[in-house]
Amino acid sequence: MTATREPQQDRSRVTRERLLASTIEMLAGKGWAATTVAAVAEAAGVSRGAAQHHFPTRESLITAALDALFEQLTVSIGASMEELPPGPDRIDAVVNRAVDIYTGVQFKAALQVWAAAASDPVLRELILPREFKFARAAHRLTVAGLDPTGTNQKAYNLAQATLDLARGLGLADTLSDDSRRRAQVVATWCEQVKLGLGE
Amino acid sequence: MTATREPQQDRSRVTRERLLASTIEMLAGKGWAATTVAAVAEAAGVSRGAAQHHFPTRESLITAALDALFEQLTVSIGASMEELPPGPDRIDAVVNRAVDIYTGVQFKAALQVWAAAASDPVLRELILPREFKFARAAHRLTVAGLDPTGTNQKAYNLAQATLDLARGLGLADTLSDDSRRRAQVVATWCEQVKLGLGE
Repeated sequence: MTATREPQQDRSRVTRERLLASTIEMLAGKGWAATTVAAVAEAAGVSRGAAQHHFPTRESLITAALDALFEQLTVSIGASMEELPPGPDRIDAVVNRAVDIYTGVQFKAALQVWAAAASDPVLRELILPREFKFARAAHRLTVAGLDPTGTNQKAYNLAQATLDLARGLGLADTLSDDSRRRAQVVATWCEQVKLGLGE
Repeated sequence: MTATREPQQDRSRVTRERLLASTIEMLAGKGWAATTVAAVAEAAGVSRGAAQHHFPTRESLITAALDALFEQLTVSIGASMEELPPGPDRIDAVVNRAVDIYTGVQFKAALQVWAAAASDPVLRELILPREFKFARAAHRLTVAGLDPTGTNQKAYNLAQATLDLARGLGLADTLSDDSRRRAQVVATWCEQVKLGLGE
């Protein structure tokens, strides 16, 4: 029994992950209205019945995709914080990492859900706790990166400001490639954080 | 002839303005999908025929609403820059003003259009020139506020970063009231800008 059940569980997990990856990509590329369970199933090459077995409602698909997306970002920030250069150079690495997370496909997908949730109280209640959990994790990791010894009280607020700036830069990048202007803003902010931390 | 034509032109202008105000409010409150010419006409108390006379297509209504919205914001930033306190206090006023423009109903309305335009190339081409024009005006006014004597070269980049931060704070405020956390971030940011400008 075990021998047959395990591959089945594996297949089920792979199907689920494919559906979630397609959801994130479709939200970012085609927008909120286009991202239905049926459309995601087709894009993922999964039968509609199998997709509905995993995600009986659109809400369940969207919230699972958000969970996956926030988890990916948290793991990715965590990993990058373990490879920081020593000294003030680590500040550039931390700021750039924060900006990276808001300029990728995950942010573009999340933006679609936020925009939809602005006028949908049910969706908003589903999103807010996930959003808060991610914001706390991102902040904790950013503080730890800016202040590895845990001794600089200004790191807490500078980490908040860094993440808010990063979110704003992400939004500026949704309609056109803003990377050149962004590089200049990021350089300015890195200098500011060093001044603020006294480094 | 003139006596009758003028009131008619006035009525036409008032109708147009009512439609645009309703569009901004509806985008912010009910979202992109709900904001059609017919729904806006009903909310504004304007007949569907009169609404279609002013705005034959949804695109024409949305772009006119964006023009109105960016114009309101530009005028409002410009007016506030004329009342700045002297000395370093002006920096708090400039930063707070930048943040205000991204946490009002206009930003929430614009966010809906941005999110829709992310997957709609026609809409994107209509929005981008308007967005750039507004961004330039907001930046010019913010630089002038931070550096009234036009002598501090760092004002240019700090103004950019301030507007990006403000946009990020606006986005954080769309799903829940973020005003308490925001006040702390803004205070940190003001301190950083003063450090950066050497004041």
